[in-house]
Amino acid sequence: MTSADTSPTVFSAPRFAILVAGGSGSRMGADRPKQFLLLAGEPVLLHTLRRFADPALGVQQCVLVLPPDQFETWQQLCAEHAITLPHTVVAGGATRWASVRNGLAALSSPEGVVAVHDGVRPLTPVSVIVAAYQAAQAHGAAIAAVVPKDSVRSLSQQGSYALDRSRLRLVQTPQCFEIGLLRRAYQLPELPTFTDDASVVEDLHPIQLVAGDYRNLKITTPEDLLLAEAILANSPPQ
Amino acid sequence: MTSADTSPTVFSAPRFAILVAGGSGSRMGADRPKQFLLLAGEPVLLHTLRRFADPALGVQQCVLVLPPDQFETWQQLCAEHAITLPHTVVAGGATRWASVRNGLAALSSPEGVVAVHDGVRPLTPVSVIVAAYQAAQAHGAAIAAVVPKDSVRSLSQQGSYALDRSRLRLVQTPQCFEIGLLRRAYQLPELPTFTDDASVVEDLHPIQLVAGDYRNLKITTPEDLLLAEAILANSPPQ
Repeated sequence: MTSADTSPTVFSAPRFAILVAGGSGSRMGADRPKQFLLLAGEPVLLHTLRRFADPALGVQQCVLVLPPDQFETWQQLCAEHAITLPHTVVAGGATRWASVRNGLAALSSPEGVVAVHDGVRPLTPVSVIVAAYQAAQAHGAAIAAVVPKDSVRSLSQQGSYALDRSRLRLVQTPQCFEIGLLRRAYQLPELPTFTDDASVVEDLHPIQLVAGDYRNLKITTPEDLLLAEAILANSPPQ
Repeated sequence: MTSADTSPTVFSAPRFAILVAGGSGSRMGADRPKQFLLLAGEPVLLHTLRRFADPALGVQQCVLVLPPDQFETWQQLCAEHAITLPHTVVAGGATRWASVRNGLAALSSPEGVVAVHDGVRPLTPVSVIVAAYQAAQAHGAAIAAVVPKDSVRSLSQQGSYALDRSRLRLVQTPQCFEIGLLRRAYQLPELPTFTDDASVVEDLHPIQLVAGDYRNLKITTPEDLLLAEAILANSPPQ
């Protein structure tokens, strides 16, 4: 018996994950979508899937949203890399919003909390995912974010002016929500201002921020892939 | 004779550079200041100095601002790495503002444009430096900046709200100014809101933005050094 055993039992809501991978690879100048690029010898998306399959998270169902014309490639990659992690594959839509909506529809339960995560963020520390799930269970909506490392300016008619960096956050994923809340938000019409799930939800519910991690990068440019390789080789996040 | 020869001659103002290196290394968890960490076998600051010594830039004088207790180390590194690039070493102050002011006082001419640059940004493409010098000559004040890759939120009492990322810029260096303008700005008292030179100048003069580069990273964390190594090995900026 350790002293930890005497702490009150915290009810943990069922956990789900939607991994959104809609990239075509054009921004990477690569011959394949960025979610299928090899990182340390394995597809980026496999790294991401493995993060959410970590037993410490207890995720009940992991939904992978992919463009339909990439299903076959993913199936081949699963065979090649002997990917046995259980997951549900769902067809993406024309926009990220439509893709997440499709992923939501495929969840096997209307109860619990769901993490929406970029399929091309393969290095998210499990501790960040846990923190986002826990905050979403407590507050309804929680996303990972970091303070910008650089000074930030806003454009103006005359040029630009400085913003207070300490009040700003760069948004990452996971973005975690009570499933019911996220479903209500996705019943509203799509708006051009929707850049992520927090922006879809925020008219209905305040968004909590939890500490992200600078290593939780999104693979969008060739140098991102270089950095991911270097991080995995030198200081892999846990 | 090429057609380029018929274009009007553009007067180029004399160019100067102040490289500010005040780091102590504490954020890196390293045994030496980050400007002295080895990148591809050479001190970070040497890489930076070499960028500004590029003949294409025609920089007349390069001032290196260093904490006085690092002069000896830098001298040793210059000997070890056979650094023969001409530069002036000046003692830094208690803050970045004081350090730049000391650098400004050491310029050999009151005329021209000066680039203030982070000593720990070793990978700035020369094309970015040229663009900043040219814009500063035309407009008085110009800084390199990039659009954030991530969604950006601002903290609020209730949580946070989304900002329009397309209106925001992450500030890099070089930050280039007419020397007279920058000197006038540095005659005013130091304010806690000064995070960079643009913030020092902007009450006197509008700040132009020029396109920076995502590879123009500032070495502030261990993963930044990993990325810099990877970029140098794979896609070094020109």
